[in-house]
Amino acid sequence: MEETFVPFRGIKNDLNGRLMCYKQDWTGGFKAGFRILAPTTYIFFASAIPVISFGEQLDRSTDGVLTAVQTLASTALCGIIHSIIGGQPLLILGVAEPTVIMYTFMFKFAKDRPDLGSKLFLAWTGWVCVWTAILLFLLAVLGACSIINRFTRIAGELFGLLIAMLFMQEAIKGLVEEFRIPERENPNSIEFQPSWRFSNGMFALVLSFALLLTALRSRKARSWRYGSGSLRGFIADYGVPLMVVVWTAISYLPAGSVPKGIPRRLFSPNPWSPGAYENWTVIKDMLNVPVLYIIGAFIPATMIAVLYYFDHSVASQLAQQKEFNLRKPPSFHYDLLLLGFMVILCGLIGIPPSNGVIPQSPMHTKSLATLKHQLLRNRLVATARKCMRNNASLGQVYGSMQEAYQQMQTPLIYQEPSARGLKELKDSTIQIASSTGNINAPVDESTFDVEKEIDDLLPVEVKEQRLSNLLQAMMVGGCVAAMPFLKKIPTSVLWGYFAFMAIESLPGNQFWERILLLFTAPSRRYKVLEEYHATFVETVPFKTIAIFTIFQTAYLLVCFGITWVPIAGVLFPLMIMLLVPVRQYILPKFFKAAHLQDLDAAEYEEAPALSFNLAIDGEMGRTASFGDDGEILDGIVTRSRGEIRRMCSLKLTSCTATPSKEFRSLQSPRLSDSVHSPRISELRGEQSPRLGGRGPFSPRTGEPRPSNLGKGS
Amino acid sequence: MEETFVPFRGIKNDLNGRLMCYKQDWTGGFKAGFRILAPTTYIFFASAIPVISFGEQLDRSTDGVLTAVQTLASTALCGIIHSIIGGQPLLILGVAEPTVIMYTFMFKFAKDRPDLGSKLFLAWTGWVCVWTAILLFLLAVLGACSIINRFTRIAGELFGLLIAMLFMQEAIKGLVEEFRIPERENPNSIEFQPSWRFSNGMFALVLSFALLLTALRSRKARSWRYGSGSLRGFIADYGVPLMVVVWTAISYLPAGSVPKGIPRRLFSPNPWSPGAYENWTVIKDMLNVPVLYIIGAFIPATMIAVLYYFDHSVASQLAQQKEFNLRKPPSFHYDLLLLGFMVILCGLIGIPPSNGVIPQSPMHTKSLATLKHQLLRNRLVATARKCMRNNASLGQVYGSMQEAYQQMQTPLIYQEPSARGLKELKDSTIQIASSTGNINAPVDESTFDVEKEIDDLLPVEVKEQRLSNLLQAMMVGGCVAAMPFLKKIPTSVLWGYFAFMAIESLPGNQFWERILLLFTAPSRRYKVLEEYHATFVETVPFKTIAIFTIFQTAYLLVCFGITWVPIAGVLFPLMIMLLVPVRQYILPKFFKAAHLQDLDAAEYEEAPALSFNLAIDGEMGRTASFGDDGEILDGIVTRSRGEIRRMCSLKLTSCTATPSKEFRSLQSPRLSDSVHSPRISELRGEQSPRLGGRGPFSPRTGEPRPSNLGKGS
Repeated sequence: MEETFVPFRGIKNDLNGRLMCYKQDWTGGFKAGFRILAPTTYIFFASAIPVISFGEQLDRSTDGVLTAVQTLASTALCGIIHSIIGGQPLLILGVAEPTVIMYTFMFKFAKDRPDLGSKLFLAWTGWVCVWTAILLFLLAVLGACSIINRFTRIAGELFGLLIAMLFMQEAIKGLVEEFRIPERENPNSIEFQPSWRFSNGMFALVLSFALLLTALRSRKARSWRYGSGSLRGFIADYGVPLMVVVWTAISYLPAGSVPKGIPRRLFSPNPWSPGAYENWTVIKDMLNVPVLYIIGAFIPATMIAVLYYFDHSVASQLAQQKEFNLRKPPSFHYDLLLLGFMVILCGLIGIPPSNGVIPQSPMHTKSLATLKHQLLRNRLVATARKCMRNNASLGQVYGSMQEAYQQMQTPLIYQEPSARGLKELKDSTIQIASSTGNINAPVDESTFDVEKEIDDLLPVEVKEQRLSNLLQAMMVGGCVAAMPFLKKIPTSVLWGYFAFMAIESLPGNQFWERILLLFTAPSRRYKVLEEYHATFVETVPFKTIAIFTIFQTAYLLVCFGITWVPIAGVLFPLMIMLLVPVRQYILPKFFKAAHLQDLDAAEYEEAPALSFNLAIDGEMGRTASFGDDGEILDGIVTRSRGEIRRMCSLKLTSCTATPSKEFRSLQSPRLSDSVHSPRISELRGEQSPRLGGRGPFSPRTGEPRPSNLGKGS
Repeated sequence: MEETFVPFRGIKNDLNGRLMCYKQDWTGGFKAGFRILAPTTYIFFASAIPVISFGEQLDRSTDGVLTAVQTLASTALCGIIHSIIGGQPLLILGVAEPTVIMYTFMFKFAKDRPDLGSKLFLAWTGWVCVWTAILLFLLAVLGACSIINRFTRIAGELFGLLIAMLFMQEAIKGLVEEFRIPERENPNSIEFQPSWRFSNGMFALVLSFALLLTALRSRKARSWRYGSGSLRGFIADYGVPLMVVVWTAISYLPAGSVPKGIPRRLFSPNPWSPGAYENWTVIKDMLNVPVLYIIGAFIPATMIAVLYYFDHSVASQLAQQKEFNLRKPPSFHYDLLLLGFMVILCGLIGIPPSNGVIPQSPMHTKSLATLKHQLLRNRLVATARKCMRNNASLGQVYGSMQEAYQQMQTPLIYQEPSARGLKELKDSTIQIASSTGNINAPVDESTFDVEKEIDDLLPVEVKEQRLSNLLQAMMVGGCVAAMPFLKKIPTSVLWGYFAFMAIESLPGNQFWERILLLFTAPSRRYKVLEEYHATFVETVPFKTIAIFTIFQTAYLLVCFGITWVPIAGVLFPLMIMLLVPVRQYILPKFFKAAHLQDLDAAEYEEAPALSFNLAIDGEMGRTASFGDDGEILDGIVTRSRGEIRRMCSLKLTSCTATPSKEFRSLQSPRLSDSVHSPRISELRGEQSPRLGGRGPFSPRTGEPRPSNLGKGS
């Protein structure tokens, strides 16, 4: 969008864009059928578990004024509102760490004031929320989000990595705590004897690492060799929640031989305990707050406003990276406005407000990309099989597949590379087929591997809808009622899960990949190129990559250090905002423009709000079975940008190297290459033609192509 | 060898065969330089650690009459003797579990006899050893080992898997014990309070799994992406011992907060404590043993003789599988004879005798295959580089490499496929080169990846020599002196190491691969073919494979069950011997001969004793640096049969798909295939031509080739 700050324009554009696809947001979701539950549960755990443990943190630091009940309530409430009337339904809302820190600080402040005290604390935070909301309204109306476009990769990825570090820090802190005596607990009770404390710590180590390792494994289930496709699909979709349940159950095994309280479990009051009710009536007390404090509330409000403006927008941005090929328009301005309203609401009922969260939001998009892939795939496979049963020729099969594919797309898809890809493959295959003279001969599965061919065809697309977001928010709400069960989860499992989230958010983060590259042996650098198709490895001299990455890492560490500063810590986003001018005015002085372009593709423009029509979108979801999609699909689930590119290269590879086709195309083996590469390079974006010809080899050979990589350092 | 039972013939043949290469056994070893230390330490740990814990077991069950000191002494003594005057230097000797069980049983027997008692126990076992030795002499002289040839894969692999199961059982038992109060200990001491016992158990879980996982990882270090090649090489070679040290060190971290004895550590008397001396003078008491018992000693002797005959021969056979392409002759008869002498020796000095051990012996061969690969590789790379510096053409480069390779081989190598392979690749490359007209143009590294080409060229060869065996035996001897240090190792690390050995011995065991195949999704079965080139997957209908494997598994479980029978347990080898007639007379009734041939290649003939000359064998070892050999090399280290084949296929793949060559051969891309496959198929043995044309594709595409695999079940 153009960077004008005309009041309300941004909001108007957003509304126009989203309204066009609003109905489809729902129909699409429902048509996906029960499969929508996979991304839903995945995200539900990813957003509920941290919220619960943040709630525990808050519980401790506010002497129980706020508990997990309130954080869950806020997350559920805001989530439901946003998923229904919000702009970008891919965005996940929740009570985040910075909010907790701010509230802790505010409580410390209020407690020591005789005329405020912990009694009026919530009422006062109500005023803070009001001020915050007003500021957010201003920012939204004046189109402050237009600046978001200036947040290039360097900022977004740095922020993503910072969040991962904070999560990992939580995990480690938590594990260390397991060896200590928690505050608020009676240090004389049996489970805090040195021996039992040590047992508890060791038990925690076992549980958390067990969860971490099994969860990471289960995400890769689709590429496992054992078990049926449906089983593997199920594990890949629901493995992580499953593991939480499994390890919670296992934590009860030694119950007989250990005292109660080992391993330590979640602490939280029942929502129906009287204490958990007080806060809902805060609004009554708000006028009892001394005027001076009502005005003073403006100071924390500014901090929170800045924080939310940044968090909310970047979370939304990361959930809409262009590698996801989203079809529906973004909605930064309107979402910020809505956030303002939700902040007021939370303030008035005395619960901490929620905002867009990382890494849950990008995780959400990734899981929906998997879903979409499965849906498309099953539809096309079904179509192809049907044709083949009627002894259709290769040409006819592709024809009908093409048709089915188009039916599942909006008209504007015709301009998309993916569609062309489908067409091209059709042409090329017919061409090759005819060259071997079997163009009109009926094909059967032995000569034509449908499932594979289709995996080759499919581009990355995301099932954009509101249902998964709504459902997960409602499930979070359900947690409030399910508190007695949640209390059975050992805290150590929580720490393992935190580590899992941190690790899950790394792949596809180019910044992270570059850090790894620094430690990669020169002779192996080509592997990075292979896996992530990080074109910069080929186009930018290693030295430049190294300097750029070291600078970025130093900057990251500074930001991380700031989060340790008692109060100002919550303002670490300011540090990242500072990156915008740095990137625009300082970096160009040190790096070549072309190199910066490759290392940090700046996108000052955005996909325009697209005209949208309500094409049918995948009715067969309900009947579809779990696909046996293998590594390719696994790729999208577990990783983001990088992997999606890798997927493209895999397509190309398999296109050219499937025996079936090899045999068909003996006369013109290179032909298939030359025909496909355009599609791929389009998918990969501007740098790719360079790769087009060479990318495919590496995955086959696992050997370095002759390039300057080996001599990089 | 022919199956005649002419007295002494077998021994004579063995001696003739081995004497011819005796000198070279030493020169070869020394010429390898410091690199010989890699396989040495690897095997040293693999043989010392189990021997120590068997010693502990013996210590408990013989009231301290025999301890780890004696088992180590026996292992060292026999090892040294065998490595110097033994026939097959690849065979590793050690005190094995069955021996321990036998001694336990004999002690129980002796203890209850007033006229024998634990005082005369060792003297009596002395007589048992004498009888055993006599029986072994008879077996050796009469050429009983000729029957070994009838032990086909089905028997050898079943035995290998059984041993793996026993090791795993040890590991699990040990871990469970960590939660209990050990006998011989004072149950009232602090570290056996419930709380500390639980701590100890959890700590043990952490340590053993940590060792297992890190050890398995470190073996794969060569294919890591990070760190320099030399570092990776070092970790792959010495990682496992390193990990034992690291985790032992870590086990001391919480020393401050836990009582002494947590975690539990190795228990063993110092060799200079009086108790450890008594046994050496057993010979004095031997005549005090009542005659009746001297005669009665014949009964256990027969059992032990049968056991050793089988163990020793099968261990030797597994260390000489034909996939290793050994150049030097076997020596079953003579080694059995020598074993007899060693048994007497051990008996007279009152220590339990040693015999050939699994899986250490095959592990030894594998580690030497890696060594040889590195040596060859470095020599050839050096040669090629030298030529290229003198702007040699591709033809000249291959010429000189060919030459260097031959220099490192014995003349008989000319009949070997590997040499032809080298020649063929040379020809083919020249052919392709000329087709693009650069036959005489000087080549440089950018167009010609030396290291890769050479990895493609090299066949599997083993550095057959005596030095590594001698050194590791001496190091085991050193352990007796190092006992105070060994005592620092936590028992839990031991259990982890046992599990590690069990897992390390699985890959390449076709029986194991078939079991996995049963659980593999039909759509993924091709992967088995890909990785292990288990040709049977293509040539035998899945149903047949399944039945055969299920039969074999049932048989395995029966054997495993028998090991639990109190005394007869030690005779489980008899069960496996029973497989010989079963295989020869019963199985053919149920399975097609061709299928049996593929599933269980019976080799009733053996490589004849080869005439041997003392060609120079790799002088440059001393100067060589760790190679950056990557997955291929890693393949041989960590796995056996299967992997070695996979290596071949990798070669073919990379040969055909390296960009450099692809670009050279655009006009005739298929040519390279057709030229290479013969070499590969030769390497792969008789079934392979079937694979030749198709094998290469799968590793590239990771997609199933159209075959009956998908429809297998």
